[in-house]
Amino acid sequence: MTHNGNRLVTFHGREDVRVDTYKFPELTMPNGKNAPHAVILKIISTNICGSDLHIYRGSFAVPSGMTMGHEMTGEVVEVGSDVEFLHMGDIVSVPFNVGCGRCYNCKHMRTDVCQYVNGDQIFPIAGTTQHVDCGAYGFNLGPPVRSVNTAAGWAGGQGDYLMVPYADFNLLRFPDRHAAMEKIRDLTLLSDILPTAFHGFAAPDWPAMPSFGVGRSVLIFGAGPVGRCGAACARLLGYGAIIVADYLPDRLALLEPHGIETIDLNDGVAIEDHLRRITGRETADRVIDYVGLDSRGFGSDADRPVENAVTSALLKYVSFGGTTSTVGVYCANPLAESADYKKGSMTTEWADAWIKSPRMAAGQSPTMSYNHGLMEAILHDRMPYLTPMLNTTVITMDEVPEAYKVFAEGSPYKYVIDPHGSVKGDVPHGLNPGNLSKERFTPLAGKPIALGSAS
Amino acid sequence: MTHNGNRLVTFHGREDVRVDTYKFPELTMPNGKNAPHAVILKIISTNICGSDLHIYRGSFAVPSGMTMGHEMTGEVVEVGSDVEFLHMGDIVSVPFNVGCGRCYNCKHMRTDVCQYVNGDQIFPIAGTTQHVDCGAYGFNLGPPVRSVNTAAGWAGGQGDYLMVPYADFNLLRFPDRHAAMEKIRDLTLLSDILPTAFHGFAAPDWPAMPSFGVGRSVLIFGAGPVGRCGAACARLLGYGAIIVADYLPDRLALLEPHGIETIDLNDGVAIEDHLRRITGRETADRVIDYVGLDSRGFGSDADRPVENAVTSALLKYVSFGGTTSTVGVYCANPLAESADYKKGSMTTEWADAWIKSPRMAAGQSPTMSYNHGLMEAILHDRMPYLTPMLNTTVITMDEVPEAYKVFAEGSPYKYVIDPHGSVKGDVPHGLNPGNLSKERFTPLAGKPIALGSAS
Amino acid sequence: MTHNGNRLVTFHGREDVRVDTYKFPELTMPNGKNAPHAVILKIISTNICGSDLHIYRGSFAVPSGMTMGHEMTGEVVEVGSDVEFLHMGDIVSVPFNVGCGRCYNCKHMRTDVCQYVNGDQIFPIAGTTQHVDCGAYGFNLGPPVRSVNTAAGWAGGQGDYLMVPYADFNLLRFPDRHAAMEKIRDLTLLSDILPTAFHGFAAPDWPAMPSFGVGRSVLIFGAGPVGRCGAACARLLGYGAIIVADYLPDRLALLEPHGIETIDLNDGVAIEDHLRRITGRETADRVIDYVGLDSRGFGSDADRPVENAVTSALLKYVSFGGTTSTVGVYCANPLAESADYKKGSMTTEWADAWIKSPRMAAGQSPTMSYNHGLMEAILHDRMPYLTPMLNTTVITMDEVPEAYKVFAEGSPYKYVIDPHGSVKGDVPHGLNPGNLSKERFTPLAGKPIALGSAS
Amino acid sequence: MTHNGNRLVTFHGREDVRVDTYKFPELTMPNGKNAPHAVILKIISTNICGSDLHIYRGSFAVPSGMTMGHEMTGEVVEVGSDVEFLHMGDIVSVPFNVGCGRCYNCKHMRTDVCQYVNGDQIFPIAGTTQHVDCGAYGFNLGPPVRSVNTAAGWAGGQGDYLMVPYADFNLLRFPDRHAAMEKIRDLTLLSDILPTAFHGFAAPDWPAMPSFGVGRSVLIFGAGPVGRCGAACARLLGYGAIIVADYLPDRLALLEPHGIETIDLNDGVAIEDHLRRITGRETADRVIDYVGLDSRGFGSDADRPVENAVTSALLKYVSFGGTTSTVGVYCANPLAESADYKKGSMTTEWADAWIKSPRMAAGQSPTMSYNHGLMEAILHDRMPYLTPMLNTTVITMDEVPEAYKVFAEGSPYKYVIDPHGSVKGDVPHGLNPGNLSKERFTPLAGKPIALGSAS
Repeated sequence: MTHNGNRLVTFHGREDVRVDTYKFPELTMPNGKNAPHAVILKIISTNICGSDLHIYRGSFAVPSGMTMGHEMTGEVVEVGSDVEFLHMGDIVSVPFNVGCGRCYNCKHMRTDVCQYVNGDQIFPIAGTTQHVDCGAYGFNLGPPVRSVNTAAGWAGGQGDYLMVPYADFNLLRFPDRHAAMEKIRDLTLLSDILPTAFHGFAAPDWPAMPSFGVGRSVLIFGAGPVGRCGAACARLLGYGAIIVADYLPDRLALLEPHGIETIDLNDGVAIEDHLRRITGRETADRVIDYVGLDSRGFGSDADRPVENAVTSALLKYVSFGGTTSTVGVYCANPLAESADYKKGSMTTEWADAWIKSPRMAAGQSPTMSYNHGLMEAILHDRMPYLTPMLNTTVITMDEVPEAYKVFAEGSPYKYVIDPHGSVKGDVPHGLNPGNLSKERFTPLAGKPIALGSAS
Repeated sequence: MTHNGNRLVTFHGREDVRVDTYKFPELTMPNGKNAPHAVILKIISTNICGSDLHIYRGSFAVPSGMTMGHEMTGEVVEVGSDVEFLHMGDIVSVPFNVGCGRCYNCKHMRTDVCQYVNGDQIFPIAGTTQHVDCGAYGFNLGPPVRSVNTAAGWAGGQGDYLMVPYADFNLLRFPDRHAAMEKIRDLTLLSDILPTAFHGFAAPDWPAMPSFGVGRSVLIFGAGPVGRCGAACARLLGYGAIIVADYLPDRLALLEPHGIETIDLNDGVAIEDHLRRITGRETADRVIDYVGLDSRGFGSDADRPVENAVTSALLKYVSFGGTTSTVGVYCANPLAESADYKKGSMTTEWADAWIKSPRMAAGQSPTMSYNHGLMEAILHDRMPYLTPMLNTTVITMDEVPEAYKVFAEGSPYKYVIDPHGSVKGDVPHGLNPGNLSKERFTPLAGKPIALGSAS
Repeated sequence: MTHNGNRLVTFHGREDVRVDTYKFPELTMPNGKNAPHAVILKIISTNICGSDLHIYRGSFAVPSGMTMGHEMTGEVVEVGSDVEFLHMGDIVSVPFNVGCGRCYNCKHMRTDVCQYVNGDQIFPIAGTTQHVDCGAYGFNLGPPVRSVNTAAGWAGGQGDYLMVPYADFNLLRFPDRHAAMEKIRDLTLLSDILPTAFHGFAAPDWPAMPSFGVGRSVLIFGAGPVGRCGAACARLLGYGAIIVADYLPDRLALLEPHGIETIDLNDGVAIEDHLRRITGRETADRVIDYVGLDSRGFGSDADRPVENAVTSALLKYVSFGGTTSTVGVYCANPLAESADYKKGSMTTEWADAWIKSPRMAAGQSPTMSYNHGLMEAILHDRMPYLTPMLNTTVITMDEVPEAYKVFAEGSPYKYVIDPHGSVKGDVPHGLNPGNLSKERFTPLAGKPIALGSAS
Repeated sequence: MTHNGNRLVTFHGREDVRVDTYKFPELTMPNGKNAPHAVILKIISTNICGSDLHIYRGSFAVPSGMTMGHEMTGEVVEVGSDVEFLHMGDIVSVPFNVGCGRCYNCKHMRTDVCQYVNGDQIFPIAGTTQHVDCGAYGFNLGPPVRSVNTAAGWAGGQGDYLMVPYADFNLLRFPDRHAAMEKIRDLTLLSDILPTAFHGFAAPDWPAMPSFGVGRSVLIFGAGPVGRCGAACARLLGYGAIIVADYLPDRLALLEPHGIETIDLNDGVAIEDHLRRITGRETADRVIDYVGLDSRGFGSDADRPVENAVTSALLKYVSFGGTTSTVGVYCANPLAESADYKKGSMTTEWADAWIKSPRMAAGQSPTMSYNHGLMEAILHDRMPYLTPMLNTTVITMDEVPEAYKVFAEGSPYKYVIDPHGSVKGDVPHGLNPGNLSKERFTPLAGKPIALGSAS
């Protein structure tokens, strides 16, 4: 096999991402150690994620020069000497969390908090060093403070090739290559947003994951791709009333034909009134935040950022005895106005929440806990609504900078990069395959902060 | 309100059920105690269950004169003085298990093993007295041995009216009368077979009910109404490969258009070969027995009863680390030839099973644990496949004896009795609304024992 | 049986409780409805709770004239006509939560959020009306806004007699009267603080309660009676490092002989340094707040109230992937200085917490979920450390006002009121049976707010 | 480091084990493949297990020449190139299950059913080839049928040195070498019998492990070392009535001072009468089989083998709604008289069990799921009763053949082999350190089959 370098999407500053070329990856850890447990993948599909937008906008601070991307599907093209169960030509999904498979947390399927793969990091905003029990591709916050266990600095995967460590442990192998390529439009979601959305349902109930959802009601904040995946997961799990709230009508419109109730936050009607109309109550059994950073406020605060808007809404709209999940990303936000929000502090109505006896969860998804089951569900046609809800379109590496821009403006597509032209023609291609006018997809010009665009 | 007696289906002996008339029920317990916590229902729909067939055939011994039926939906027409949250005119589903709501087990939602509602009973076969921690309408095995806590002797509900004790605790109220009547064909399943089928999925994982089924495989024995509900539950819970095995092709045919794989046991192909064709393995993650008593054997034993056929198959076809559920009813069987089976003993390949580390559950469903969520799922249109899979038809009281006969012969309908003519015309009515010839629905003449006919 | 009125502890204003006499209770709901499901208890023991201190200090606002007490053990002396399984002379523990046993939440053992027993209430601070899905004796916030389902206004139980509704459902019957009186000093804790403490361990893991704690570490804030019960529960569940932090050395001293590590917050050492000394890490797998309202700050803020001190500490000291519980009571606090805290708002380091993937729970305990198992553990001598840790002493009704005072000052006793002189002499009696000087038990004079005194 | 061969206990036929010398182990898999993920351990302690006795007696058929032992604790003396988190000199516990850490089951902590480490095996009795999803040291049933994924043939560990594959994943590192050696007498139990005993409590509730046991009752069959560990686990988990049944009074006597109720099966009293005396009921919430193969019957069958005696007793004595676990080993038994038992078939009273709604589990323990927590519990002194209950004594390699003999006869010791003389003098040493006469420990001469001797 020949290759001439590795193109990777690279962060150059706020609202400035470019495609730069790097050398071909090696079976080596970021800290220089040999990685006999690793493989090299040729990327088949690699998606732009809502959490990439936090970086793009500048609210999640990273160093200039960082390579991006953490949602990868690829083909094994090189195999380390201690890889036993993967082979050349296997098609695999990469969980966005890097896990070592050897620490206490990984053994307990908590790859969201692997104890070894990131270690001590320098945080760009504060310049502080902090120990971080987790790692992800394309989230190389700062140069890792090297120690024997530290391997931080995972390259991004929006590009041609990727090194994946602890490959036997980390990778999800698709059982049949042909069937995988037939459903690549859905399977590409397994690296992050579909399991991440699923985690919204499972997290508060861990380890009894996910709890008895049949017939229960769920209120979802955010109709971006993760929020839409959340609605799809609610369908898969047999939820009763499934309600999604957002400011972006084009995104909500993707959900309505599939048994999902929507709340258009532009309509001036209070959320509790919508809930009463839909469920007869002003609360939902489960409320999930798929927005995270960069949320607008509600009602009269709709045109300005209100950092705790969704966090507060979770506790306000959850039923007595219900559960909440915060799946959207929160971090110290250098763009915030108040000192509190600059460091990631949040204010909530804690006393009003306490009396309700809620159970709450927050944080990243342990992708590996969910991706196998979701793969089987896709391969057995259990989620026919996933394709129309997600509205995936395939783009080239050259289209990536423009795709970041329109995605941040609220485009109702899920953008999947196809660096090697692997995805066949019956899947929509291009930045706007439905030829929606910008007006049609309601760009957020002048409203840089948007609920639904976040994730 | 006027009424002239209470017609009830009554067991008169093997293959002999008749409609007899009794006096109107009172707010009184079977042991004569006042029941201020009870209500009287006017029955809207009351189904014939596969477990009624065990009685009908004689394999589940009951005394002649016992009134039958435990799957009731009705309207509240009389309310006891200590009923607070139910009112005249409410439409409710009756869980087939009677629960007191006041014992340790009921408080823990284990209404399948209520400690007070049955107590000591005289068993008809052995003539022995045994303490039984459970109770159900229409399963009045023998005269209860009266004690302070004993209230056994619950009347059957295939008829005009029914007394329901502990009504605030037991009854599931439908939130809207009009919506309930619109979906009565599906909601009538909530009194037993839909929650019972669901229990097949939840039982081994209790109390973390029901476990993470997304994408997993399940093998179901029995395509009778409960087995078909099991397939529907697997759909609702997002299972991957869903496989139903039976001898009755007309019942299997109801499932095939809805993403269910079927195994026709008449075809001479080994079950493991079918499994390998469908899933690539010879086992399934979960295997459920919806048959119980009266099972035929497999392969060369297809034409004779083999009491442990399905019990053994659960352990044979379950994956290493998988789970099994025995939902079908087992009891001492006076029709069995061997002394072992006459008293309900079973032989299984225990050593072969042990090495697989299975988790197993058996017994009745605690209906109340599941009926609320399933009601919401139906009301929110999450189970559009339920109606075509179940193939429900509505009959009159006069048609009941013939319905027992054709149901026992393998008719591919679910029979719902409508004693007061409450169910409107757009629902199929009659014993054979599709005008299937007997040949068409493969009657079991000469083969009195059938896998699929059991439940 | 004769009786001349019912003495009850009554709130007359901040730091002013008195014993007033009322008429004997009847089998009637607070809204006047008949209660055939109720019993009358003659109180054997009724404890002063840390949450009573919030009321006593004025931080939890209630109307003057409210009767107090929610931790009762008693003897059945009158039985309603729809009570079946309790009898005259039974000795029972009263869960502090009132539950109806008939709503969705009670059926799911969530008696902390019973949907019927409180309903709409007028809150004293704001004067607002709010629907509250829970109820408790002695927390009659304001006159209930009467509706068909509303029964708020439950009398306090620090006194001679108490009406308990839905008695078959609510009451825990001790199996043997003699054995119960022998262990009354421990069993009296079953009405609230022992199950409440246990809930700190079970709440984040519900319904898989309580998760696998063997060998894990737990950090407990508050060495008041609930916090000490929490340490006892950690012992019972096999936790490894069990660490309790407080400002009150006399309370900590009760724990040290029983395998509990303590952090004396007066010593000027940072909590993380204590944790590193004890566990080798700066975090614990589980962190529990048994303090609630009225918390002091840490370090340089030790002498002033810092409302979010413990709430923030939960997230700061929990491990990556760990769990937190907020068992201590939070409510709008009229004594708070800031507008935020006056309405119960809290600020936390949400971004720092998010990256840790915590699971969090808050709210009251569903006492009934735990009291039966804990009763059996006590009766089987599984908690020999409970008596010395709790340091219970028995007082008369006349001693109650002084007991509130010294308990609020930090007395290291658990005060149990014995209105009828039922508790025999081998149990310590009196306000200070160990003859500790006030100096010895470190009264909080001049430091009205205390971590450990809260619960 | 120097070494002159590797002494290992070797099976030479029924009741004939010897110490043979082999070459030093290498970092190579049994099928000859390189094992860069492996380490070599110098054994510190390696125990004789009850399941070794099944082999010794001949009821679990293995080939002559098989090396024995699966309960090892050791020091790392050689490290493969892909081992990252273990170092020379680390003291580690070896889970008896070999797991790859890379298959679906290992990722879900189901190392009892690892899909890769054993593969196809030739079974000695039947001569059949079967795929086995699990592996263990010292259970090399027959020459593996080699395939790409097959690595069966794990050497036994009763000897000087051991190769452990996938070492980062498999090994439990003790945090402090000195503390480990101080508690080696308890920590040596972590390789098998303590986690295995714990599994009896967790298995039926997986993945919500282990369920809420506080105050519940448990009936344990078998007072051998595993059964005694089961009693210790019940203490650790806060169970109420803990009841152990056996025929060997010396073993029962070890339990009685520690709050455990015992049933001496020699006393002619029915088990249900014992249960009623202890708990007031004839059943227990949980019933566990720590015996497995080689069980005697009960009552009049006490002097002969009754293969299904304990299996049947689980279902007979479990409460309505209770759980059972079969932890003792079952396999095809060439010594059985009946054809059924020769192939491992079992007959149980299935109908009587069904009505009780039991949940049942069987099979090996996934050691890794429990050993970390149990290690912490030991290191934090949470199980002071473990040492006296187990009655461990340390022996030399030379004493091994005699130890097998007296252990099979019912000796009330747990035998720990110390091949290198690592265990210091304050731990009891020798075959009979308490100088019990044979009469004293009730040898089973003439009664070759014994309940309590099994495990």
